[in-house]
Amino acid sequence: MAEPWTDGTVRPAAAADIESWSCPTPAHPEQRVVMGHGGGGRLSAELVEQLFLPAFGSAASTATPTDAAVLGLPGGGRVAFTTDTYVVRPLFFPGGDIGELAVFGTVNDLAMSGATPLALSTAFVLEEGLELEVLTAVATSMGKAAMRAGVGLVTGDTKVVERGHGDGLYVNTAGIGVVPDGVDIRPGRATPGDVVLVSGPIGMHGIAVLSLREGLEFGTELQSDTAPLNALVAAMLAVDRDVHVLRDLTRGGLATSLCELADTACIGVEFEEASVPVPEAVRAGCGFLGLDPLHVANEGKLVTFVHPERADEVLEAMRSTPEGAGSEVIGRVVEDHPGVVVARTRFGSTRVVDRPLGEQLPRIC
Amino acid sequence: MAEPWTDGTVRPAAAADIESWSCPTPAHPEQRVVMGHGGGGRLSAELVEQLFLPAFGSAASTATPTDAAVLGLPGGGRVAFTTDTYVVRPLFFPGGDIGELAVFGTVNDLAMSGATPLALSTAFVLEEGLELEVLTAVATSMGKAAMRAGVGLVTGDTKVVERGHGDGLYVNTAGIGVVPDGVDIRPGRATPGDVVLVSGPIGMHGIAVLSLREGLEFGTELQSDTAPLNALVAAMLAVDRDVHVLRDLTRGGLATSLCELADTACIGVEFEEASVPVPEAVRAGCGFLGLDPLHVANEGKLVTFVHPERADEVLEAMRSTPEGAGSEVIGRVVEDHPGVVVARTRFGSTRVVDRPLGEQLPRIC
Repeated sequence: MAEPWTDGTVRPAAAADIESWSCPTPAHPEQRVVMGHGGGGRLSAELVEQLFLPAFGSAASTATPTDAAVLGLPGGGRVAFTTDTYVVRPLFFPGGDIGELAVFGTVNDLAMSGATPLALSTAFVLEEGLELEVLTAVATSMGKAAMRAGVGLVTGDTKVVERGHGDGLYVNTAGIGVVPDGVDIRPGRATPGDVVLVSGPIGMHGIAVLSLREGLEFGTELQSDTAPLNALVAAMLAVDRDVHVLRDLTRGGLATSLCELADTACIGVEFEEASVPVPEAVRAGCGFLGLDPLHVANEGKLVTFVHPERADEVLEAMRSTPEGAGSEVIGRVVEDHPGVVVARTRFGSTRVVDRPLGEQLPRIC
Repeated sequence: MAEPWTDGTVRPAAAADIESWSCPTPAHPEQRVVMGHGGGGRLSAELVEQLFLPAFGSAASTATPTDAAVLGLPGGGRVAFTTDTYVVRPLFFPGGDIGELAVFGTVNDLAMSGATPLALSTAFVLEEGLELEVLTAVATSMGKAAMRAGVGLVTGDTKVVERGHGDGLYVNTAGIGVVPDGVDIRPGRATPGDVVLVSGPIGMHGIAVLSLREGLEFGTELQSDTAPLNALVAAMLAVDRDVHVLRDLTRGGLATSLCELADTACIGVEFEEASVPVPEAVRAGCGFLGLDPLHVANEGKLVTFVHPERADEVLEAMRSTPEGAGSEVIGRVVEDHPGVVVARTRFGSTRVVDRPLGEQLPRIC
């Protein structure tokens, strides 16, 4: 997902306060970029808050902590705008590839503002020596994915870097969409009492990619869940135009999404661990690798906060779509412990859920 | 600039016809990506026409051969949308840096459709180990450039790749802008009789970057011409809302821009070599390196085709802005030799101007 940026206030262009940053593992006494800065966790958030926003200064004053920026047009109407670069390795993995991921990922960031995706751009950094067959396969996959999501690929760019300076290919997709009148989906709308739902089983993308990369097998073959979520969101808005919050569960997983939302909206979240659907293969993979399924990346799942009176209808609408067939109610927004996410375990106790520091699974999207 | 893609017809998703491609230097019998595929010349155009468009299929049916796609919104109004990735080496060069280039380059692609730039996205691929000071300097430069161009940095993304897999940093900027009513700027509007103007001296960006990279000096220090062109375009539209064609002169230089326009619009172009402003340091550098100034990249210049009756007014408006102070009339659109660009030399003879095959100056933007 595109990164949350700011609370909307104007910030002065100050020097980055590098001294105050968290220490990742390993330590970075030299003040250099570490893998965790790209992991979608706390280090990523620090990079945005402590380096990019101060450096961009008032040019970033209208950035918002959402998957996509929503911009009012001079002539009326609103457009959503987002960007993501994909550096996943390997380029092809069970259930998908970098091209499909790049299209669906950006479509989903647009959908998380309630927007109807309109068009994507595609920008490639190719490494000298890449087989044209590989590029053809990725581009073909992008075309098919765009057709499935009902979005045009309307403009693009290609750069080539010398052998050894790239990594096969990186692809960036940016996207624009149209936000329907009356739709207002953003973290700030989270309200105590809201019901929290997830759209299906979690952790599939991360474990599918990792298992291929590390040559691991977990009994059943796991496929990435990469999918476009715009039809799911449209079905939700058809029964409840007043959906409060949407967030897709990408890097950092469900835990990171909930923590960011709780932090931004200054509300608490409580959920039942037993209600969160986790496939057996994901559970096995996480057990083997020492990972928490709540921290593992997804590419076709979302979490939503809706008014309690509309939760049943929204759940039914979600389950009526292929992408939301496995939807479940998992918890509630609460007034207590603002900024903190609490899970009720299977044993009746509670634990505080935190986001990972950095890169639990590098190069996952 | 974003790459021209298609003539607007719907194309079937066919396999790429790799066999029919031009042979670059060196030959690529293995059908792999070569540096020239990113050079903005004929190989780049082939990659788009013969690989990306067939692979994308009907998903790319609305792509157009312009710097930015112009999209009608369901509620009325039009937005321009464009993308560019920047891989320039070194990151800092005389007169600019990769951050400023990324902001102005995308602002300029929007301006070439007559759009008022509204917002940019910023997406980074960082190499593990990059000094945070370098990233801060680049981001600070982006913020300043965005303020100068009057555009917000509203959404972003950061990925990190392992040491040795990147090249310090690559940055993608996509942009959206609003196209004013009544403005219709595109290659197809080129009309025989139109006057051809350039907005100032050419070749400065390419030679400035190359001279630093290769440790060359040409008597005077040459600065890149990187600049935002939206104020220049606004000044032109204020005196002639009916400007026919705009194109910024980036990779491949003036020659490539004119050849692409002649090809797309099926018109001829004739210009006087002596009328094209070329700084002495560019001429010296090109002589030393065996380059043609017409092929060298610019990052703050445009070429325009306007109705002959409006040419004087437009020229005056261009010269009234800092970015267009060096504007000159250089030639005409003609009915003869459609698709062909002809230069009249200082000796009275004529020569056909072609675009470079591939990468005359690699990693220039």
